This record gives sequence, structure tokens and C-alpha cells, in this order.
Amino acid sequence: MMFQVLINEVKAKKPLIHNITNYVTVNDCANILLACGASPIMADEIKEVAEITSLCAGLNLNIGTLNQRTIETMLVAGQQANQLNLPVVLDPVGVGASSLRNQTAQRLLDTLHFTVIKGNISEIKALALKSQTTQGVDAATLDLVTKENLHEVVAFAKKYAQALQTILVITGPIDLVVDANRAFAVYNGHPMMAKITGTGCMLNALITAYLASYPQDYLLATLNAVCLMGLAGELAAKRLQSFEGNASFRTYLIDAVDLMTPEVLAGGIRYEEIE
Amino acid sequence: MMFQVLINEVKAKKPLIHNITNYVTVNDCANILLACGASPIMADEIKEVAEITSLCAGLNLNIGTLNQRTIETMLVAGQQANQLNLPVVLDPVGVGASSLRNQTAQRLLDTLHFTVIKGNISEIKALALKSQTTQGVDAATLDLVTKENLHEVVAFAKKYAQALQTILVITGPIDLVVDANRAFAVYNGHPMMAKITGTGCMLNALITAYLASYPQDYLLATLNAVCLMGLAGELAAKRLQSFEGNASFRTYLIDAVDLMTPEVLAGGIRYEEIE
Amino acid sequence: MMFQVLINEVKAKKPLIHNITNYVTVNDCANILLACGASPIMADEIKEVAEITSLCAGLNLNIGTLNQRTIETMLVAGQQANQLNLPVVLDPVGVGASSLRNQTAQRLLDTLHFTVIKGNISEIKALALKSQTTQGVDAATLDLVTKENLHEVVAFAKKYAQALQTILVITGPIDLVVDANRAFAVYNGHPMMAKITGTGCMLNALITAYLASYPQDYLLATLNAVCLMGLAGELAAKRLQSFEGNASFRTYLIDAVDLMTPEVLAGGIRYEEIE
Repeated sequence: MMFQVLINEVKAKKPLIHNITNYVTVNDCANILLACGASPIMADEIKEVAEITSLCAGLNLNIGTLNQRTIETMLVAGQQANQLNLPVVLDPVGVGASSLRNQTAQRLLDTLHFTVIKGNISEIKALALKSQTTQGVDAATLDLVTKENLHEVVAFAKKYAQALQTILVITGPIDLVVDANRAFAVYNGHPMMAKITGTGCMLNALITAYLASYPQDYLLATLNAVCLMGLAGELAAKRLQSFEGNASFRTYLIDAVDLMTPEVLAGGIRYEEIE
Repeated sequence: MMFQVLINEVKAKKPLIHNITNYVTVNDCANILLACGASPIMADEIKEVAEITSLCAGLNLNIGTLNQRTIETMLVAGQQANQLNLPVVLDPVGVGASSLRNQTAQRLLDTLHFTVIKGNISEIKALALKSQTTQGVDAATLDLVTKENLHEVVAFAKKYAQALQTILVITGPIDLVVDANRAFAVYNGHPMMAKITGTGCMLNALITAYLASYPQDYLLATLNAVCLMGLAGELAAKRLQSFEGNASFRTYLIDAVDLMTPEVLAGGIRYEEIE
Repeated sequence: MMFQVLINEVKAKKPLIHNITNYVTVNDCANILLACGASPIMADEIKEVAEITSLCAGLNLNIGTLNQRTIETMLVAGQQANQLNLPVVLDPVGVGASSLRNQTAQRLLDTLHFTVIKGNISEIKALALKSQTTQGVDAATLDLVTKENLHEVVAFAKKYAQALQTILVITGPIDLVVDANRAFAVYNGHPMMAKITGTGCMLNALITAYLASYPQDYLLATLNAVCLMGLAGELAAKRLQSFEGNASFRTYLIDAVDLMTPEVLAGGIRYEEIE
């Protein structure tokens, strides 16, 4: 199985990942990158980001606590990464929640090419349809991907992925990994992942590390990272005892990524290709 | 008992709370909001805060790492919240420690109406008396509320609460929750809470969530949040084993809020009204 | 043994430490300061930093996520600390990785006197030799201090310490604590410390607390902090069970500092003077 190879690729290559991300979950992003075998660097000053990006193997952009200063920084870092052909991953946190987030997401999409764009269905829809249903960082209930609307969402996602020439990751109880031609549904994951902040941000960082380690097949690398994160969530929940809550879960989630082996991954991942 | 109802109100309403808070403890604030059943959003860019506040059910302001940019942002968000009649809670961290903090606190008080203002006695006194005894974020020893000076502090607090038309929460070994007419002393809490950063910031976030969930009686909602936080501290300390220190306590504190039930709360809270 | 005295000095004096540090690991820095008995304050607004520094017993500067605003702030705070003769500690994170970091480090060295400068060998070399081998925050493999090149690195460090009239701490599998006249090798530490973000930042904060508590002998205070941090890493690693990973280690590391006693320290530290 390819996935077992990939998990070792990250540990072997130790890719340095440049993160311009929100200040809420930045520590978790750094620690999950270290957990998977990558190395994090956070830098958001416009005078240095192009240089920093040049040292790195991938760029993780997250607009969770965007401001006028960091928006410009993201554009500069992104252009540098595009020029060097490095993978760039966008987490359009809360797009749909403000005009600034909508405009910024649009500027980012107009200026940069993203290898992967990851969001919940509300965010992805806000990007695609200028929908306004985003409630903070959670998908509005109506939009959730279910067994019933799976094919509908996949058809929408494939079209949008083709238009942007990107891979879309749509997170939820079922995660989707979709490009113009293929689509995968990932059944790994656990409801506790919504009880801590940063699960999505950490996934974005993890995807960047996997892309940086396996440029041969970005779709496979993305699928691998999504499965790994979901499985880590399951293992963390299994470890949780009755007297432990969401803060313990946060620790266990990162621990699970650190301890993941090819064998555990092979035994635990659950996904299928959607034709 | 009303409190048991309230704890479930937060979980049922899942209020979205807008936080403009310091970057030291922001992750803990997000996770404790999730633990109590609320949903956090952090946004501090002036171009979007009014919109973000409009989506929310309450606003949590904290000047712990204030800067010129975020001061203006707090004012804009606060005015929007006031206009929409949303609860707004101020944590005037370190007021008394610099002229900027004093001036900023004054500007905030002059411009905005706060539903609750929470601080240690030094901070509250600095606000009220332009006292200069704040040492970082800890109350100077002389000022601590004790059984002996309780009535004196309560009299002072009632007068100040009336002047500002607000609820005052004065934290310390004994916490006080006071408005113009009534005062409560809360005996819950544990000394370990002073061994981690962010206890006060988390309490401020928690109060905002409770206010947002129970606008019928802001004083009761505040009292509930203060008792809950103190009891969570006790439970976290009880869980702590001899080989565990303050970082474990941090995890256990948030866990305790996540696991709190109406029954545990009813059995553990200790407060009384001060006539 | 002097060290047992010092550990109690920090707890007795509870020095307030002013930190202008990166937003990635700032929470860990605050909690490790509380763990060792000190008190943290974070403030980076230029309008207040001189006042904040004046209230404090030491200043911790870290350029991990520097920006144009905070660079100026660091200079103002540093000048105030120098004027008041307070200890100032520099963590030149990632120097060598961008021109801005090189220029900023140079400006800081030109403008301020540092009591201690702490970095990995790449960072220290980048400072001293304008070397460009820094990969993020890890020392490039070639540069690591080993038994073999120990005397060579010590000779270099003594010369550079003399030129800057400072104490150099060079971190790695073997840590060095060096001033113009004396040098110590510290053998405490554990490889897991490289699996979490912030170990270096926390050490910088810890050194500042120790300097602030023992101005009689800055070299001894620094050596003590370095030994303590390394030993805490060992104890945290020993506590780690097979199903626990780097996030648990992060908690245990801070716990270990909190729980450290003079006896444990005396029994665990391993260092020697290098003639």
C-alpha cells in the first residue's frame, strides 16, 4: 500500500513548511508538523517572507485571523511559492463571514495557484457560490455531506476543482478529496474533533507536509494526510477516558500523529473512490 | 436550581462568541468556549470586526497584549455590539501597569457600555481609583479580598458598578460578583489557578458565553460562570497527581469545564449573597 | 551546592519577566515562567514597553516571528532594560534564514547590551560569521557540537563572548555556556526536546528568570537554567509511556520544571567546566 511508504517519506525528507496562519492554533500547527516528521517555520513579515518561502518545501496559508498586513504577506509568499513550483495550501477559514474574508479569498484565488484548498462545505460553497451561510468555522447543518447528497457534492466539487485547477478537500463527518477527475470519500474521523479548536488548521499543515514530501502524486498525498488526520482523531478518542475532556483530546490527537506507524495506518484507514 | 438549567442553555444555544483577546492565552480561550458548549471566533482586523460581531451572540474584549491597531478594533467591535444590544465583557488585563493601558481602559469605558467588567482587585482599583499597584496580572497582596475586608470591598464595588451601570467581577481567593444592588461572594477556586497563565482570560470568555445564553438575567449568568470556573479549578486540582504540575493542571481545567454536569455543579458550588 | 539555593531564589523573588517573543510558543513561555516561580508579562506595543520593562526584573527578546512593528519595540524595551541595568536575553531565532533577521540581529547587537545570547550553533555562527546555514530553527548537522569539536567550538565561543561582552549559550545535544573566561558543557537534555516547538524559547525565558533572581553571578544563573531545562527534558521523557507522543511530552516538560526540587536537581544535573 502506497500510504505506508508516504508516512515514511515525510519522516525521511523532514520538509520545512512555511506557515502563515492564525495566532489561535499556531502552536498546534507547529507541533503536528513536528509530530508527522516535518519541520515548521512561521514568518509573516513582508520584508522576509519571500526569502523564507524559498528555504521551504511547502507553504501553508490560513486566513483565520487575517489582517491588512498579513493579507499582503500571504500574496507575496504565495507568488514566491508558485514561482518555485512549491505546493501551496489554502485554508479559507470563515470565508462567507465577512466581506473582507470574501474579498481576500477572491484576491488569493485570482493571484495564486493553490495545490490544495481545504474547507468545510460552507467555506467551499462561499468560495464557489458567494454563499453566506458560514457560521464561524463550522459548516451550517444544512450543507453537511451525507451518504444521500454525496454524489451531488462530488459533482459540484469536481467542476469547481477543474475550474481552479486544484485539489479540493471538503471536511465534515465525511471528508471529500476531489480533483477534476477523481474523488475520494474518507470515513475516518470522530465527533470530538469538533470539540477543540484547530483541527482544520492542523489538517491544512499536515496536507502541506505530505504534498512537500510526495510531489509525484499530489492527490494521493492529500488523501493520505486526510485519512491520517481522521484516524488520529479516532485513536485519540479511543484513548480518552471518562474523566477526560476536550483538552486531553487535543494532546492525544497530536500524540496519535506522532505515534502513527505504517501498520496502524494500513489497519485503520477507511476511504473509497467515488465514481 | 437555576444553575443546572443554565449549563444546559449554553450547550443548547451554542452561542458564537467574538473574542478580541491577547495572543498568549487565545488558544485556551477558544478551547474553554468549546468545552462549555459555545463556539469561538477570533477576529481583530478593523475592516471586518463590525461584521463579525454582528454574527455573534457576545463580545469578549481583553487588553492583555493590546496594540494601537487592536485598540481601535476593540472600539469598533464594542460599538457594534452595543448597538445590537449584545453582551460585552471587558478584561482590563494589567491596567495600572502603563499609561497606555490606563488611557485605553478609560477610552473603552467612555465609549462603550460593558455588561461585565472582570479583573483582580488591583485592576478594578486601577480603573476606579487610578491606583498604580498592579504587578503584571496578579493582585498586589495588600489588596486581596479576605473575610475581613469583604464588606468594605463590596461597598466600593457596588458604588462603582452603579456608576458604570455594569456588573463587576473581582477575582481573587474569594471572587466577588457585584452589581449596583446585589453582591455575591464565590468561594470556589484553587491556588493552582494562579500557577497557569490564562485563568482570568478563560473566565472572561466563559462569562461572555453565559451572558449570551441567558440574557434574561445577566447577574445570575455571570455568577454561574464564576462558580463554574472556580469549581472546575477545584476538580482539576483534585485530579492532579503528585507527579503532575501546572501544565497538566491547564489541561485538566479545560477538561473539567467540558465534563461539567448540572449535578456536579449543584453539588460543588459554594457562594453566598453578601447583604 | 549553589544550584539548590538558586532554584529557591526564583521561587522566593517571583521576578516579573517582560517577554517580547513569538506568537507560536508564547503560551509555553508564560507557563514555564510560572512553573519555575517567576511571573510573566507579554507586551509589545511601542507606546508602553518602556514602562512595562521598568516594572520588570528582566527582559526576554525572541525574534521568532519578528515584524517591522515589534523590531522597533524590542529596541525600545532593550534600551530601557540596559538603562536600568536589568538582564536582557536574546534568542535570535532563525538568524541566517533571511536578510531581515540578519539585519535585525545586527541592529540589536549594535544598539543593546545582552546579558545572554542563546541559540543553536547555526544561529550563533550566523551572528558571528554571517554564515547562512540555518535551516529554520534547527542546527545544520555539520555544525553540531560533539565531543570531538568541543574545544574548537569553545575557543570560538569564548572569543565571540568576549567581543560582545556577553554570555553565550549554544544549544544542541551538548549545550555550552560560555563567557570570555570560562566555559561549561551541559550533558543534560533529551532528543524528544526537538520533537516539540518552543524548547529553545522556553529556555530563553527560564534563563531570564534565573538572571533576574541572581544578579550576583550571571554565569552561574545561566548554567543553572540550562541544566534545569535539560534535566526537565530527561524527566519528561522518562515519564512518557509507549502510547504517548510529543504533545504529552510538551505537558510533561513544563510539569517537570514546576515539580523540580533542589534534591532532584542536585541528583540529576550533569555538566563540567571545559578548561
